[in-house]
Formats: sequence, C-alpha cells, structure tokens
Amino acid sequence: MTTPPRNPWVLAQRAHKMNPSVIREILKVTERPGIISFAGGLPSPKTFPVSAFAEACDKVLREDAHAALQYAASEGFVALREMVAASLPWEVDPAQVLITTGSQQGLDLVAKVLIDAGSRILVETPTYLGALQAFSPMEPDVVAVASDDQGVNIEDLKRKAPGARFLYVLPNFQNPTGRTMSEARRAALSEAAAEAGLPIIEDNPYGDLWFDAPPPAPLTARNPEGCIYLGSFSKVLAPGLRLGFVVAPAALYPKLLQAKQAADLHSPSFNQRMVVEVMKDGFLDRHVPTIRALYKSQRDAMLAAMKREMPAGVEWNTPDGGMFLWARLPEGCNAVDLLPQAVDKGVAFVPGAAFYADGGDPRTLRLSFVTASVDQINTGMVALAAAIREYQRDLAPATVEG
Amino acid sequence: MTTPPRNPWVLAQRAHKMNPSVIREILKVTERPGIISFAGGLPSPKTFPVSAFAEACDKVLREDAHAALQYAASEGFVALREMVAASLPWEVDPAQVLITTGSQQGLDLVAKVLIDAGSRILVETPTYLGALQAFSPMEPDVVAVASDDQGVNIEDLKRKAPGARFLYVLPNFQNPTGRTMSEARRAALSEAAAEAGLPIIEDNPYGDLWFDAPPPAPLTARNPEGCIYLGSFSKVLAPGLRLGFVVAPAALYPKLLQAKQAADLHSPSFNQRMVVEVMKDGFLDRHVPTIRALYKSQRDAMLAAMKREMPAGVEWNTPDGGMFLWARLPEGCNAVDLLPQAVDKGVAFVPGAAFYADGGDPRTLRLSFVTASVDQINTGMVALAAAIREYQRDLAPATVEG
Repeated sequence: MTTPPRNPWVLAQRAHKMNPSVIREILKVTERPGIISFAGGLPSPKTFPVSAFAEACDKVLREDAHAALQYAASEGFVALREMVAASLPWEVDPAQVLITTGSQQGLDLVAKVLIDAGSRILVETPTYLGALQAFSPMEPDVVAVASDDQGVNIEDLKRKAPGARFLYVLPNFQNPTGRTMSEARRAALSEAAAEAGLPIIEDNPYGDLWFDAPPPAPLTARNPEGCIYLGSFSKVLAPGLRLGFVVAPAALYPKLLQAKQAADLHSPSFNQRMVVEVMKDGFLDRHVPTIRALYKSQRDAMLAAMKREMPAGVEWNTPDGGMFLWARLPEGCNAVDLLPQAVDKGVAFVPGAAFYADGGDPRTLRLSFVTASVDQINTGMVALAAAIREYQRDLAPATVEG
Repeated sequence: MTTPPRNPWVLAQRAHKMNPSVIREILKVTERPGIISFAGGLPSPKTFPVSAFAEACDKVLREDAHAALQYAASEGFVALREMVAASLPWEVDPAQVLITTGSQQGLDLVAKVLIDAGSRILVETPTYLGALQAFSPMEPDVVAVASDDQGVNIEDLKRKAPGARFLYVLPNFQNPTGRTMSEARRAALSEAAAEAGLPIIEDNPYGDLWFDAPPPAPLTARNPEGCIYLGSFSKVLAPGLRLGFVVAPAALYPKLLQAKQAADLHSPSFNQRMVVEVMKDGFLDRHVPTIRALYKSQRDAMLAAMKREMPAGVEWNTPDGGMFLWARLPEGCNAVDLLPQAVDKGVAFVPGAAFYADGGDPRTLRLSFVTASVDQINTGMVALAAAIREYQRDLAPATVEG
C-alpha cells in the first residue's frame, strides 16, 4: 500500500480569490469588551420586536407547526410573498417575489444567473462590500462607475455600459456612504440604462429607514422589466431570522428560482411564518417609525459629537436615513493606519478602502450611528478625535521630511 | 430618446443549464388533495418535537433575544458547533464545524470551492438529485461510477479517479436507493481514494435513522484529512429550520467559510439557538429512537403491502434505515410513463431516471415510506399495483408487435 498523498485537495480557481471579509476580521478585533464600535452594520437591538416575535412563535407552533417545520416551496411562503408584493410602490405580482435567506443570498443568486467568468459588471464608487464578495465567486470583471453624492455619474456610466451584464446600485442611504441618489439622478440613470440596454440590480435594505421624508421612487418602479430588486427584513424586523426577498421580471424568475433551490432548497419555513404573523395588521406601519426616530436621534448625536470633537480638516456627510455616515480624514492620512490607534483608545470604525472595487480613497471611513447608544457615541467620538490627533502628530515628521 | 430594448438580460452560460427539479415539479402535481404520495422526501410531521421547540423559542426570546435576533458569526453559533463536534464518532474540533442553511447549502459551498468549469467529479449510480443541482452551476464534468447494492464499484472508481476533484457519496440509506455501503466496501473505498489522492465528499443526512443496527463508521472517520462531511438537523429535528453542517479539514475550512459568508452571511442565529436549547440534556438520545421505530414500522408496512399487491416481475430492496426504498418495474416498463396513470389512481412516486447523472435505468422508481401513514401506504400500494397492471395491459399490444 502506498502512502496517501498529504493534500489531495485541488481548489477551484475562484477559491484562490476568496479572501476573508476585511469588515468581519475587524469586527472580530473590535468585539472585545469595552470597545465602542462604529464599525459593524448591526441594527440596534432595541428595535427588535421581541414580544411580537414571542407571540408569533407561540401562534405558529400552536396552529401551524407541521407546515412551519416541514420542507416547503423554494419560492417562499405564499402569504409572505403576497405581503411583500403589496408593500412595494409599483405593481408587483406575488409570483415575481422570491423569498431568500437574507438579501445577501439574492446577490449570490443574481451572480449565478447573470455572471460568466470575465463578464463586465458595473458598481458604484464605493459600493457594498458584501455584493463584491457575492459576485466574486463567479469571476466577473468588476468595473467601478464614478459616483458623487447624488449617485453614479451618468456620463461615466454611458462610457462603461456597453457589454456590461448589469449595474449594481444601492440608491437609498447607501452602505457604506449613507448617501441617497437624487430624483434627478434616478431619472437620468433609468433613462440611460434603458437606452443602453443595461439591466439594473437595485439593492434596497435601508429604504424604509428615512428620517424626514421618504427617498425618491425605486429605479425598479420606473422600469420593472429592466431591474431586479432586492429587499430585506433585517433592518425593519431583525437580521437573525435571515429573511430577504428578490423581485424579478417574469423572464428571469425561473432561473433565479432554480439557483435558489440548488443553493438551500428554501428559506426557513418557520421564520417565514413568524414574520407573516408579526407583520399582520399593519405592524410595520407602527414599528418602523420608532426605528426611524431612534436612528435619527443617534445620527444627530453623532453629527453633534463630530462637530464638537473632530480636529480641523476632518469632513463628513449628513445622511438622510439608514445606518451609516461617511467621513474623510485630512490630507495625508490613511484610515487603515489610524484604526489600530483608535482601537487602542477604545473605538472602532471601518476604513473606507474596503468598499472600493478598485483601490479607493484611503482617507475615508464608515461610521455606523445605530449600534452604539448616544452615551457611547459621545464617549467614542472623544476617543476617535484623540486618536486622529495623535495619529496626525505621529505623521508630522514624515510630512516635514516629505 | 430611443425605444428601450425589449430584453436587456444576458444569462450566464450556467443558467442555460439550470432546469427545474423533476422531483419538485412532480411534487407540485401530487400536492393536490387526495393523492397518496410516496414521492417526496418529507419527514413524518409526527416526528417534529413541537412542544420542545415551543419551550426553546420561549426560553431563547426570554433569555437571549438580542443575540438570537442579531447578525452573527458566519461560522455558526459556538454552542451548536461544539454539540455537532461532540456528536460525531471521530475526533472533531468545533473549529472545523461550519453551520449551514440546510446540508444542501454545504453542497453549494463545496461546489464553489472545489469545482472549476470542466472539472471531473465522480458520483454514485444513481445519486442524490439535489447534489447534481448544487454542483451543476459550477459546470463540472459529472462522471457516474458504477455502483451496486454494497456501494460504488472499486475497480470502476480506480479507472475514473485520475484527475477527478472529488467523489460524492451518500453511504447510509442513500437517497434515492435506500442502500447502505457495507463495511468491506467502505474500507476498500477509503483505501482506494487515499491511494488515488481522491477527496471524498460524504453526505450523511440519514445516518441516525437506522432500524436494527447502526451503519458502519463514516468514511470521514477513516481519513478526516481527505474528506468533507455533511450533516443535517432536518431528519432528526425538522427540515423547516434549514440547519445543517459541514465538517472540513483545517486547510479547506477558511475557503468554505468565505463562500458561506458571501452566500448568506450566516444561518439564522435564532434557529441555531433554538436547536441548541432543544438538544441540551441528551434530547436526541430519547427522540431519535422514536423516529427509528416509526420509520421501521412504516418500512415494514410498505414491504408487506408490496409483497401482497405487486404484480410479478416488480422488484424492490429492503433498506436498513432512512426514508426510501428502490423498486424496479418489469422489463419493457418505463416509470416516467407509468407516473400519470398512477397519479390518476391517486398515488405518486418519483421515477428513478431523475437520479442518474447520465441517463439511467428507466424501470426504477423511488418510494418514500415515511410521509404517508400505514393506512395510506396500504391504500396507496393497492392503487400503485393497479396502475402497473393497467400500464402493462396498455403496453401489451406494442410488445406483441415488437
């Protein structure tokens, strides 16, 4: 008998390109007790409707346990698909709604159905890191479209659209920047995409979390046949249930459904029924305004603390909703280098470089204002400002030399 | 403004090969009321521990709601990973356990990490249809290894192993055949695979459902560095929670984890905590024997009914556990053609042809003995036997002519 070879495993090409999520790795460091984290995109647990979930579990297991615990249709639970269709501001047939295991899974299914190795796909600058991770196993050529605080640059989009499989956008309270695409930009983008024959993947996990006024209508509402729309229950109910949805044109739905079936058969039937129970009788109409009010007060606290504490030269935006704001360090600074010093002082964030498809601005950082309390925001901003000052002092000699 | 193109969508090559699951399509037909179904692989809802789930939900939401409803680690809940590691009959570090959204997701992750377009992968004859569906998006060259009622044919395996990325096997109470790989065959397979440097993907969703004696030790226990092991909570607790697991060698784990993170971030934290609560204090040691006893009595009822009712020339096996038995119609019959006549008489099954990677034996069919009650099994077998007789009568003139 010959000696067995030490390592019989041959990895797929795509696996060589799989790298740990920078954010997840940072989050591990920052999970140690005592760190105030502006890093994670974790909804405030105060917003989880725990007693409504408890009632729903009880009811589902009393009245519908066998169906809730059994295998189920890959499309999702009919009542939930109907609720999703009815909640959207354009005409959606429940038959177009596919329930997914979080909206992250929607990105995985889109990638499988639309990306060949080498396919050109377009993303914003910067863009959601999880989307890049979901697309990457299908080995696309990811091209970043120039973007400003109104959304993607239409001229750059037109230049890059020919031959692209799709444009991926997150128009409302974007992750990571918190910015919202304006009505004018949406209209121009919708027209340009239709003219170029460029499909749009519209990701909208944060759209309900507006503070003063709802964002403009979704891109999908303007051209349902040219868009796939992704939504989530993670930000309005709870992420730990892992439920999201995809709305797809009838021509694409069967392929996404088959990819879904192959991926995990179906999303948890029990969780889908829980959510239907909770959402009955207009629960979200009462619940979501409480999330909006909380997050708005936390955004305001963060903006006030930054204004109070930040050294000159640090810039930031004022998001109209969602969970994140986007800041920029003074010239010569690098947010990746700042991070360890910030963690030493007890505060964490995500360096913006992680969110760029191709390099990116090293001075940027993403700050979540929803996970930490107002007291923690105040304490954390004092610490972050101190870390920036110290980092700048350490930089100074090099600056003089340069 | 030009007229928007009618269909801007370009599908990935792999999407053209995605076809609806034959089984799911059949199940839709057979879900109409009054049909006795031997088709689906649905655990008996009598085995779902509903009151234990209700207590667990209540406890998790009372004591640990914020963590249960929040985003969580992609690896899975630590306590669940420890329970899985402790339950396996070889030394497993909890750090090797990855919690998945059903064991179907384990197959999707394996495909992403190990299959390039054109990679040769080996499967049994016949094999689990869901595995073929999970592998297919990565565009492998699927090669069927000859198999008999003891498992894969070792000589054929040796011929086909060179250059193959892995062999996928389901050694215990296989889906679809119900057969179990013998101890001698496992030893020979394990040795042959190690000699050939052929990794093994071992899928074991049914292993706990043995009737008289446990099956031989897993292939992974014999060579943990050369195997990935997939398990499931669907058959011992409930499929509607969508929880399974992968045990992987340390060298492969990070890649599977990254694929998992990209696929759905993590499996539902709430469901993982529910299952930990239910499984505490040795619950499965008391619960699983009741499933074994029920399924054994249903297998016995099906075997007795077949012996009583089936026309001459119909053959079937006697599975030692699991959920399925495998039958074969007399020469000249085709199970796909029989199916509509059976459904007309109020009984359904899955034609065996669906389970072959390359063509297959058209006379075979898969019969589940766990979903229907003993009364339904008796009634259903009378109907199935009548359908076979009628089908054979209809065939007869053609046979005379031929």
